[in-house]
Amino acid sequence: MKTEELLIAATLASWERATTRLDKAFSACTDEDLEREIAPGSNRLRYLLGHLTAVHDRMLPLLDLGARAYPHLDIYLDQADRSFEETVTPAALRQAWSDVNARLAAGFATLQAGQWLERHTSVSPEDFAKEPLRNRFSVLLSRTNHAWSHFGQVAILHLEK
Amino acid sequence: MKTEELLIAATLASWERATTRLDKAFSACTDEDLEREIAPGSNRLRYLLGHLTAVHDRMLPLLDLGARAYPHLDIYLDQADRSFEETVTPAALRQAWSDVNARLAAGFATLQAGQWLERHTSVSPEDFAKEPLRNRFSVLLSRTNHAWSHFGQVAILHLEK
Repeated sequence: MKTEELLIAATLASWERATTRLDKAFSACTDEDLEREIAPGSNRLRYLLGHLTAVHDRMLPLLDLGARAYPHLDIYLDQADRSFEETVTPAALRQAWSDVNARLAAGFATLQAGQWLERHTSVSPEDFAKEPLRNRFSVLLSRTNHAWSHFGQVAILHLEK
Repeated sequence: MKTEELLIAATLASWERATTRLDKAFSACTDEDLEREIAPGSNRLRYLLGHLTAVHDRMLPLLDLGARAYPHLDIYLDQADRSFEETVTPAALRQAWSDVNARLAAGFATLQAGQWLERHTSVSPEDFAKEPLRNRFSVLLSRTNHAWSHFGQVAILHLEK
């Protein structure tokens, strides 16, 4: 493998570790467990599942890998936990989470190393010329960090089997 | 910048964001705040500060960037919170945290892109030949993820000003 291919392979492995760890924790939860809070007054697991799914779903158009599949989950980004009426069932949330991560994995597999250095879709060509770090790779890193930060919270509840 | 230089610059920026966010949170804490738990029965901030400092300190020899400066902080890795008598003052913990991160930043600045693909010091040349992802770059990624996972916990307390 060439240098850039090794760097991208390592970074993709780091993304996959985050989603796999989260997946194990959410899979170990019953639907009742999803109502548990990370800490008193903090977000419930159910909210974090919706929130992470919405963030990952938005990565599809941001990385130019396809249209969003679950835009109605943006309520888990735009609104605080418990501030809205939840119409999405736990089963539907779980299914969306798995589906979005599978779509991302399939999309990632189509990208050549050089394409990770291309601009993401929310930066204009003009701005990208000035700020070359606003590329797909930086989105992958920041969303990996986001996933790990919430994994750290989920881990407080010791759900992983 | 060449492709691999851009990838490494983005990854170093991601590490720096993690340490900067943690730094802001710890700086916003009084020494009394450091006694606060993330959640009931969970780790105290003081323990996380010691734990993160020990993990970062161990990166120095692991990345072949120098000797460890604070090996006595390994107790924050080897023992659970509240299971040992703490002899390190909050001021000394804070100083070690800043110092270790500064040493790492200085070390990172000496590395050329290709050197990030070299093996880390806990893998043998023979094993590295079979597993080329066991390199400095993977250590940087995994420790960045580690830092973000604990940042997610610290963020529960809303300490950042």
